[in-house]
Amino acid sequence: MEKVRLGIIGLGQQGSTYANFIKEGRIPNMELGAICDTDTEKKKVSEENYPNVPFYDDYKTMLESGKVDAIITCVPHYLHPEMGIEALSKDIHALLEKPAGVYTKQVQEINEYAKTKPELTYAIMFNQRTNELYRKVKEIIDNGEIGAIRRTNWIITTWWRPQAYYDQGSWRATWDGEGGGVLVNQAPHQIDLMQWICGMPKKVYTKAQYGYQRDIPVEDDVTTVFDYGNGATGVFITCTHDVMGTDRFEILGDKGKIVVDDSKKVTIKRLHKAENEMSNSLSWQETMNLFKGKGPGAIYEEEVLEFESVWGGQHASVLENFAANIIDGTELIAPGSDGINGVTLANAMHLSSWLGKEVDLPLDEDLYLEELNKLRAQEK
Amino acid sequence: MEKVRLGIIGLGQQGSTYANFIKEGRIPNMELGAICDTDTEKKKVSEENYPNVPFYDDYKTMLESGKVDAIITCVPHYLHPEMGIEALSKDIHALLEKPAGVYTKQVQEINEYAKTKPELTYAIMFNQRTNELYRKVKEIIDNGEIGAIRRTNWIITTWWRPQAYYDQGSWRATWDGEGGGVLVNQAPHQIDLMQWICGMPKKVYTKAQYGYQRDIPVEDDVTTVFDYGNGATGVFITCTHDVMGTDRFEILGDKGKIVVDDSKKVTIKRLHKAENEMSNSLSWQETMNLFKGKGPGAIYEEEVLEFESVWGGQHASVLENFAANIIDGTELIAPGSDGINGVTLANAMHLSSWLGKEVDLPLDEDLYLEELNKLRAQEK
Repeated sequence: MEKVRLGIIGLGQQGSTYANFIKEGRIPNMELGAICDTDTEKKKVSEENYPNVPFYDDYKTMLESGKVDAIITCVPHYLHPEMGIEALSKDIHALLEKPAGVYTKQVQEINEYAKTKPELTYAIMFNQRTNELYRKVKEIIDNGEIGAIRRTNWIITTWWRPQAYYDQGSWRATWDGEGGGVLVNQAPHQIDLMQWICGMPKKVYTKAQYGYQRDIPVEDDVTTVFDYGNGATGVFITCTHDVMGTDRFEILGDKGKIVVDDSKKVTIKRLHKAENEMSNSLSWQETMNLFKGKGPGAIYEEEVLEFESVWGGQHASVLENFAANIIDGTELIAPGSDGINGVTLANAMHLSSWLGKEVDLPLDEDLYLEELNKLRAQEK
Repeated sequence: MEKVRLGIIGLGQQGSTYANFIKEGRIPNMELGAICDTDTEKKKVSEENYPNVPFYDDYKTMLESGKVDAIITCVPHYLHPEMGIEALSKDIHALLEKPAGVYTKQVQEINEYAKTKPELTYAIMFNQRTNELYRKVKEIIDNGEIGAIRRTNWIITTWWRPQAYYDQGSWRATWDGEGGGVLVNQAPHQIDLMQWICGMPKKVYTKAQYGYQRDIPVEDDVTTVFDYGNGATGVFITCTHDVMGTDRFEILGDKGKIVVDDSKKVTIKRLHKAENEMSNSLSWQETMNLFKGKGPGAIYEEEVLEFESVWGGQHASVLENFAANIIDGTELIAPGSDGINGVTLANAMHLSSWLGKEVDLPLDEDLYLEELNKLRAQEK
């Protein structure tokens, strides 16, 4: 196989973006196999923009058409796992949009199923994982350059969405349509990056506001405290009502500190001596001398890295990597099975806020689903 | 009265600093009335450094000596309220060191007593309130320049203390000696500033680590979530084990945002239109246009202010203001009764962390004291 023939399920905003990438030749190892949308008005759009590409209004028919080697699920989150399973069952490779699903039980299901099809490629669109900046941060952590993590802190409030955004479709920002708000639609990128780089916490406490600044039933404002189980803690803050949003990610280790500003600039401070050694060897007088004048500059080296980003480049990279894995086994940037972690964290944040208390991981999945379904039922 | 004769109770680090300020003429409306310390070895130190100043080893004797018009309590925190009451009862003005006390019940007691002596000056050493930077931030908030507060976030981890600091005295960083760690010794400054500027929360959730990176029984690492009761939330983070500490205070309002970096630089963004108006009037297409290219610069004005600080200047200002209030009724920067708020918050943080759940304000003071006394008893 030289090029993977991709079937795009859902010709909305994301689906069209990917179709255009392929049409424009931005994904050298991919071609448009077919497009599918249940909205038959999209047929005209598809035929105008992608004239030689077959269109289907039923994705199962597309899966059986012989026109596609792989699919991507650009549809409401609830559908990602079942469509992925259906594709894999027809021996078609599956790339899920993020989040992998709305609740962990359904993501668990596709993860288990995918294990029975090891010859197929199962991946997830965590485009931020291709961001050179975050790859560098992960590398620094993985190499132990700043030592063991003591604290993480991400304020990511750049996801501004006006009311008009929510009013675009009745499924948006509802329990039954999306299964949540900022935690399932906007912030999954950072939720995944944070656990990818810093690991999964053992406990989660969340204070969330539902419909705080927008006319929606789901959360538009979230503050979470992570407990990593070894004394290390973390904070994750996100919302959709800060039009001058902050994006500041700080990781404190016992040998240094990383601060990422605006997903563009990384400031790395590497201590000459581990903090505990300093604590155990410096007298109080030496400490006071250290902090006099210009401050403790001499105790660490500072490195500042600046990154540029190209719009769309990340998504294109994930598509290319997915196709490369199918063609020659190139290692996946974002294996599908990784999607469970982000969903687990988002579910834990919801559950903690609903119960008004810290929750343990592994999550009580049944309780989560029960509570989620109550909210879905109230909407109907 | 032209100059207030101050009696300094406790000739340790802080007491000596204040005595030197007065000796050096930095407090024009104050003179050294007397010095008191229960450690009789301090008598020699006192006589060498302040030769004409009477020394007492019992503060009650000093109060009755006729040598002092006012006192300051540079002694372990538990003693501040009782010494303050004793002074006021002898018609002597009282300036308490921060924190006002260890638990709210004892601070309540002096606050009530002080009301019966309205002719006397009762103040507290919240030196940071004289910091021009924080006065400016408070003014901006009070004037409504950034509108109603939606989120506060202070990461204040610049309080690095090596083990040697804690090993200086057996009372340090113990439940019975200080009543806590970073929350009662180092962070009360910022706890007061945060409530002074942003108001008191209605609920508090805290994750605290006890003896996490230091050999102490009390907290050296704290993460707190505030709920202001109207949808607004806040985060407060502090610790004593980050030698490259962060000091970043962010306040989001519905008309703007303030970010204070390193207690030196204030960045104020004032929206041209309130965020809710923007949310209700912009279409999604207009929003996407807004965020293209250089970002939404045109929606706000940015102002950056830089401040310089002079070491010791803040403490000298509080001393001078305290004396001025005694002499001519100049308005107090930090009335003694204000001390209760910081103690309430520190107590709420402890209690929440001990109970593992969010606590409501007003605080359950009896429960707090009961739990604190259990910890004190364990140390004996």
